[in-house]
Parts: sequence; C-alpha cells; structure tokens
Amino acid sequence: MAIKVIAFDADDTLWVNEPYFREAEEQFCDLMEDYLPRHSVQRELLATEIANLPPYGYGIKAFMLSMIEAAIKMSSGTIKSESLLRLIEIGKDMLDKPIVLLEGVEEVLQALHGKYRLVMATKGDLLDQEKKLQKSGLAKYFHHTEIVSEKKETEYERIISHLDVEPSEFLMIGNSLKSDVLPVLNIGGHAYHVPYHVTWELEKVDRKIEHENFRQLKTITDLLQFIS
Amino acid sequence: MAIKVIAFDADDTLWVNEPYFREAEEQFCDLMEDYLPRHSVQRELLATEIANLPPYGYGIKAFMLSMIEAAIKMSSGTIKSESLLRLIEIGKDMLDKPIVLLEGVEEVLQALHGKYRLVMATKGDLLDQEKKLQKSGLAKYFHHTEIVSEKKETEYERIISHLDVEPSEFLMIGNSLKSDVLPVLNIGGHAYHVPYHVTWELEKVDRKIEHENFRQLKTITDLLQFIS
Repeated sequence: MAIKVIAFDADDTLWVNEPYFREAEEQFCDLMEDYLPRHSVQRELLATEIANLPPYGYGIKAFMLSMIEAAIKMSSGTIKSESLLRLIEIGKDMLDKPIVLLEGVEEVLQALHGKYRLVMATKGDLLDQEKKLQKSGLAKYFHHTEIVSEKKETEYERIISHLDVEPSEFLMIGNSLKSDVLPVLNIGGHAYHVPYHVTWELEKVDRKIEHENFRQLKTITDLLQFIS
Repeated sequence: MAIKVIAFDADDTLWVNEPYFREAEEQFCDLMEDYLPRHSVQRELLATEIANLPPYGYGIKAFMLSMIEAAIKMSSGTIKSESLLRLIEIGKDMLDKPIVLLEGVEEVLQALHGKYRLVMATKGDLLDQEKKLQKSGLAKYFHHTEIVSEKKETEYERIISHLDVEPSEFLMIGNSLKSDVLPVLNIGGHAYHVPYHVTWELEKVDRKIEHENFRQLKTITDLLQFIS
C-alpha cells in the first residue's frame, strides 16, 4: 500500500453537522404539532426533501425550502406566516452555527500534515462549506479542498485524476458508507469508515462491507495506527 | 502579450440567465400587487436579497428564500400560502429552464479550443451551475471549470495559481465589470468585457474603465480579432 493522498469528508467527520439538522427537525415538529403527530411530520418532511433533491441538491438552503413547502402542504395552507418566518430563522441560525471540531481531528491532521497530501472532500452548498472550513481553522492542513454536488464514482474519479494519482494511492476517510466508502472502493481506492452517532436517513447503508481496501475505525485517531 | 488561459464567465456571457430572474421578479410583482406598487415591491425584494447575500450567497435557492421572506414581510403576514407555494414553483421553474446559448459562443469556443487552455469561471450555486454546464453541451471545450462563491481578487488569485500560470497569461471574458473585469485587472490579469442587455442591480458599475489590459468588446465574436 502506497497511499499518497488522504481525503477527509467534512460534515460529521471533521466537525458536528447532522445534530444541527436533527435539532431543526425537532423545532419543525414542535411548530407543526397542531396539524400532525411528530412521526408523520418527520416522514412528510423527509419525503419533501427527497423529492427536492434533484432540483435543490444538499445543504441548508435546500432544507429551508423543503421545510417551508412541507409546512404549507401539511397544514393545508393554514399555517401562520409567522411560523414560516420562524422556519427561515431556524435555517439562518443553522447557517450561523459555530464549528465544533470532533475529538482527535486536529491531532490527526497535524500528525499527517507534510507526510501525505491532505484533501477535504465534501458535498453540499459551496458558500456554506467554504465558510465552515474558514471558521474551522483547519484550512492550513489541506493541500486543497473539493466541494462537490454529489459523492459518487464519477466525482471521485474526477477528484483523483485532478490530483494526478492512481486510485490505489487515494484514501478516503468519512462517516458515510454510502458517500465516503462504497463509491471509493468501487473505483479501486481505499476507504476507512469513522462512525458518527447520528446518520441522516438518506446516508444509511444496511449491509456489512468486506473489502481488502476497507477498514472500520472506531475513532478518527485510529487512523494513525494504520497510516503514518 | 502571451495569453495561455482564457476564462469565460457563464451566466449572461455563455448563456441566457438574468432575463429569467427579471421574468420571475415580474411574476413576483404581479403576486404582490394587492399590497404595494411595483417599484416598491422591487425595491423591497432587492433589499431583502442584499441583506441575505452574506448567509445565502448567489443563486436561485437564495432568490427563492428572499422572495418568500419579502412576500411575508411586505404583506404583514397576510399573504396567502398558495401564493407562497406559487413562489416555490416559480423558483423550481427557473431551476428547470433550458440553456439558451448566446450568439457566437459555440463558434468562439470551437475556434479557440486547442489553442488556449479554456476555463469556465462562474459564481453561484454549485449544483445549478454544474447542471447548466451539462445541459449547455459546452463542457467538452473546457479544460476545467471553476465554480466559486464570489468573484473577487482572492478567488482569481487562487484560480490562476491553481492553473499554474502568471496573471499576465490569464484573460477573463465576461459581462460583469464588477465580477469579471475589475478584480482581474487589479491582480495583473487581462479582462475583456462583453456587454449583455440586462444587468442585475448589484453587478452594475458606474464608471469608465481605462487600462492597458482591458478591452471593450461589442460581442463575444470580437474576441477572435484580438486573440487567435
């Protein structure tokens, strides 16, 4: 194994993200409790988000628009406009959250910096992800950052060819089996999974992965045992 | 002059964009005509968009969220929720518009392809711009594409260093003096302006540019006289 590039997912791998969406979802359910029971609200919101993925993609603005649409539809148009303004506020608060680094992240980046080319590879909203990287103070460790609209085989192939390495020299670290692990293994790269305690419905993968280029880590710090 | 890289802005330089925003704004004014005269509606919407630039950035999703917020506030919360759903539809229609190339664009790219490294450099929403490039059929002409959240000096410096050329070897073509011309001239690059008949309020620049690295073109086809 001759890894040259280590790419890190950002949301829920380097810093806290998904809990903010869960928190917003709870606030959404509170606002909608006059109309529908919580589990129905959650299901309807997720259905709206899925339907809106092709036009909107990922990220907080997409989530805000889906909340607004779902709220109007679920309430048969009777939702008060002050509640809709509240949803916009919830979204703006999310965009303004501080960055909370996950345990071990900075130590790991520090230890690997200079030994490997380190890359941040994340999907989502361009401006939002750039701001988060800025606020995180981690930009100095990365040779370069890639913000993509999807994390599938094609995008990883583009990233790898752009980095001018072979897939076998590329290692991806992330919390999503679907976005960070499977597509990378499929194109001949290495991928290590670092679990996070909250996973978005759409990122869940219900199977065990066995592959010679795959490793299951417990925490990001485990990476240093295998690599450095 | 030894230009090596020619970068093209996309919206309103390669394809029609701003007229779709103006069209949506007209529809917005129609929906709001019970509440305020058209010019006040336009002014309020623009004020909301400006206030929302720092959290949202550019693009259609940002515009949709600003329309919704402005509609609720301008109507003092009395706007019907079906009108708000209509705003969401207007936005989704914008996201789904076909790509209409501007006259001469394909011929110019064809003529320059292979002689210069051609780059697309645009700001806005990542997913939306990627889809537009896809639909345009122009991707094959570009060595690489850059989608950035802002087009200021810093971003151009990053793009140029990434391309491994000197600023003096870089030429930017675009319709916005503010985003495509001034920052490029400021860092020592070349910039040619191709006017478009509609310019967004925030991209307007009220001064005459005189600079040895600047040229005012009438149409994109004029480029071939100066370069090739």
